[in-house]
Amino acid sequence: MAKKRNIIVGQSGGPTSVINSSLAGVYKTAKERGFRKVYGMLHGIQGFLDEQYVDLSTQIHSGMDIELLKRTPSAFLGSCRYKLPEIHENPEVYEKIFRILDKLDIEAFIYIGGNDSMDTIKKLSDYAVFKGHDHKFLGVPKTIDNDLALTDHTPGFGSAAKYIATSTKEVIRDALGLSYKKEMITVIEIMGRNAGWLTGATALAKTEECEGPDLIYLPEIPFDIDKFLKKTRELLKKKPSLVIAVSEGIKLADGRYVCELSGGGEYVDAFGHKQLQGTAAYLAGFLGAELGCKTRSIEFSTLQRSASHMASRVDVDEAFMVGGAAVKAADEGDSGKMVVIDRVADDPYMAAAGIYDVHRIANNEKLVPRSWVNREGNYVTDEFVNYIEPLIQGDYQPFMVNGLPQHLVLRNKKL
Amino acid sequence: MAKKRNIIVGQSGGPTSVINSSLAGVYKTAKERGFRKVYGMLHGIQGFLDEQYVDLSTQIHSGMDIELLKRTPSAFLGSCRYKLPEIHENPEVYEKIFRILDKLDIEAFIYIGGNDSMDTIKKLSDYAVFKGHDHKFLGVPKTIDNDLALTDHTPGFGSAAKYIATSTKEVIRDALGLSYKKEMITVIEIMGRNAGWLTGATALAKTEECEGPDLIYLPEIPFDIDKFLKKTRELLKKKPSLVIAVSEGIKLADGRYVCELSGGGEYVDAFGHKQLQGTAAYLAGFLGAELGCKTRSIEFSTLQRSASHMASRVDVDEAFMVGGAAVKAADEGDSGKMVVIDRVADDPYMAAAGIYDVHRIANNEKLVPRSWVNREGNYVTDEFVNYIEPLIQGDYQPFMVNGLPQHLVLRNKKL
Repeated sequence: MAKKRNIIVGQSGGPTSVINSSLAGVYKTAKERGFRKVYGMLHGIQGFLDEQYVDLSTQIHSGMDIELLKRTPSAFLGSCRYKLPEIHENPEVYEKIFRILDKLDIEAFIYIGGNDSMDTIKKLSDYAVFKGHDHKFLGVPKTIDNDLALTDHTPGFGSAAKYIATSTKEVIRDALGLSYKKEMITVIEIMGRNAGWLTGATALAKTEECEGPDLIYLPEIPFDIDKFLKKTRELLKKKPSLVIAVSEGIKLADGRYVCELSGGGEYVDAFGHKQLQGTAAYLAGFLGAELGCKTRSIEFSTLQRSASHMASRVDVDEAFMVGGAAVKAADEGDSGKMVVIDRVADDPYMAAAGIYDVHRIANNEKLVPRSWVNREGNYVTDEFVNYIEPLIQGDYQPFMVNGLPQHLVLRNKKL
Repeated sequence: MAKKRNIIVGQSGGPTSVINSSLAGVYKTAKERGFRKVYGMLHGIQGFLDEQYVDLSTQIHSGMDIELLKRTPSAFLGSCRYKLPEIHENPEVYEKIFRILDKLDIEAFIYIGGNDSMDTIKKLSDYAVFKGHDHKFLGVPKTIDNDLALTDHTPGFGSAAKYIATSTKEVIRDALGLSYKKEMITVIEIMGRNAGWLTGATALAKTEECEGPDLIYLPEIPFDIDKFLKKTRELLKKKPSLVIAVSEGIKLADGRYVCELSGGGEYVDAFGHKQLQGTAAYLAGFLGAELGCKTRSIEFSTLQRSASHMASRVDVDEAFMVGGAAVKAADEGDSGKMVVIDRVADDPYMAAAGIYDVHRIANNEKLVPRSWVNREGNYVTDEFVNYIEPLIQGDYQPFMVNGLPQHLVLRNKKL
């Protein structure tokens, strides 16, 4: 076997609580498998194009650092939202990338990200095939949204779901304590532009000592504001405190986002995604005006993807596993593929890493199946809950220093 | 010594993560001191007037239940926002209360709450003195806002501060990961209508691996939007990602709330407090328009007072201590008083329960001293940080069941 060369890893897209656990998995496995150097690109492919990278051995000095990294939210290496041009549109970019790869003596290129990042893996591996380069390109899935196809679920989803369910339980308790002889409606807004996986995760708050949210609205089902009002009015007759979970991305049948009704601003990011905000605030105001009761809105916001203090052990461990599996695949000659999580068994839950051709994956969004939402379109089914429940199990207690969770951060960025 | 009679305890006002730890302290100490029955009023004095109460021995069956109660956010017994009328305005209300107290054979009445609740203790003890009743009325402080006078700090504050500092660290990491070659400003909105204690707690995020927020604006200092813009523009030249913490209650020099500038709604609660919302959203929009960079706003919202999964051990233990101390004081003959926390020493931190006449306490708001804010009015001083730091130390890990924190909840509400 030829002497092993170097490996480089990057992170891309919106961060999660466990994206650094995948990075830790890449690093540890690469070291164990005898790769010489493990480089980290700073701010993904965008920083790489500026020759921004770091030798990870200057950052990770011990098993303790690996454990800290697993408990650090957001992209340790920095992320980017940078979409590679089509090869024929701008071959110079590709030539530059491969020039840097060769300069660094890179054998394998691992990219941790979501749909858009898998597009990067696809293009780079296509280009390598086209040009006869032997670099390996592997994708590691990452997104709180759980909207990647072919993988049973995505690393990052379980921890976000656990944080959301925990916070929902706490908000429900808060609401119950305050609603004597007066009605109060709390509308919680959850991330998820098109996919309702995270919003549905609020149903996990339904436990032996908590009723869970009263209504759950996913973006997959057109939102009917008249039915919503009728249903809320009906429930309010039975109980004084209602907690309603809505996705930021719920839309009317005519395609307008509910948050647009408020006249609130809209924002389009580098990938052309609309930034949504204000859905819960609009609905809380609407219900308050229509029903004359106290209402409030809560956006779980950025903490859904960064609250590593409430990470799921299953999720952190699986994120680590898929990172390691990508290195193994590259080392064994795979390229143009994404590692996925296969659910091996349900009872008890078991999962293993699988692998798919990245051409089958990129830019397909996995939505919540209609059959996992009730007929009325205002709650998820038991199947939905059974699917998520194993993914929020177990804890990774943060390492607390002086009362706060400690993180691993980039030190000297120079090589 | 005469045979002991019964004791009743209630919770009032906005909940905290540790208000139930005070309840646990009341219950445990009352049992240990030989009170016959420990009643809990449901939804404070408002429920009590409707004869809504519960024998706590039907709810708390074990040491495990006490520990669960200490880890349960929001008011276990339910809260209320009910202000007793002046005695001369409505003596019938007082007669009714004392009639129920006698019916239940109550010797001591413990009320856990904030400024408004101490007003209840004051009025009831005044009435008892006036009428020659021998019931004892004791107050236990509670508020995340830390705005009660005479106590070094309030139970509930430390846990809220810990949650806020933790979430601020996580948000800063999130922001840092995303700001390559582009500027981004994150504005975080923290609770605190008039007192900036919680907003200042974001400074705790400044640790060995985190720069902390860049600017902090408390409601005690008039907010100058031109200076704010100038300072932000200046900082943005030095670093691409800024995180700014603002209190929901910051006001312009002319007295208008910043959130009013957005034309957003206002809401007045039973105590005449304005409900504020939208300060961060307004400022994020303002900065985005003026500086042309990406901005986002995050409200930590209700979770600041209900995230018991990130409670401070010092806070939980002190909340327990003051609950117990109130029972002890009542048992030893005190009335018309509030238990407080005295800081016995700073290095190492030590605290003990003290006691004050409730007439000295009620309705005085403790604000952040001007000398604990820097000259520019955009950050807190080291003295401020040194004051808070001991209060966020240590954890009370939640009891996790099926992946989520378990809470103790009221079972059968009937006696």
